[in-house]
Amino acid sequence: MKEFGKHYLVEFIGCDSDKIASASVVETIMLEAARLSNATLLSHAFHQFAPQGVSGFLFIAESHFSIHTWPEESYAGVDIFTCGKEMDAQIAIEHLEREFAAKSVQVKLLSRGIDKK
Amino acid sequence: MKEFGKHYLVEFIGCDSDKIASASVVETIMLEAARLSNATLLSHAFHQFAPQGVSGFLFIAESHFSIHTWPEESYAGVDIFTCGKEMDAQIAIEHLEREFAAKSVQVKLLSRGIDKK
Repeated sequence: MKEFGKHYLVEFIGCDSDKIASASVVETIMLEAARLSNATLLSHAFHQFAPQGVSGFLFIAESHFSIHTWPEESYAGVDIFTCGKEMDAQIAIEHLEREFAAKSVQVKLLSRGIDKK
Repeated sequence: MKEFGKHYLVEFIGCDSDKIASASVVETIMLEAARLSNATLLSHAFHQFAPQGVSGFLFIAESHFSIHTWPEESYAGVDIFTCGKEMDAQIAIEHLEREFAAKSVQVKLLSRGIDKK
């Protein structure tokens, strides 16, 4: 495997529905998660869906964070793609878990790049 | 499994380095891929890195497309998160393969949501 980055796919389950329903709240929490993980933020954008749901994206020098929320299901799906050695995605995941008041978190970690097998 | 969406992680290998080095070329190709797959585009943003590399993101009603390119390695990593039944990510992947002139493509398809096992 020639690896270019690591990709974390994270399911936040049993979240505080009010928090994950608000684009501005989700944005604040995601930006802080990126900062804590030592990511280098380049730009970001968030969408508020009607009747509910938020999508958000952070461009970082190390690749990206994304989030999509389903407040009616207390569920948020996040992915973090990182190609740097300086940032620690686990710290971001722990911050999101705490701030979303998630009852459980499921993480899949995948290598991104060229599988030579 | 309570599934909220499907997440395609796609490795494009042996790409045309000139094409994947240009943010404007990659943007045009990605927007067309989204259109062909019947995605509903909400907004998009692309970054040109120096000395090389492109990152891009499309917000769609069905979730997102992202791309990160390593022109010096002829490699582009794409992910497509879709929660709709109307769009066909496979059509987007085939368009990207053709336009990037990729020599090979590796696709991982994951369910996003709550794993009850």
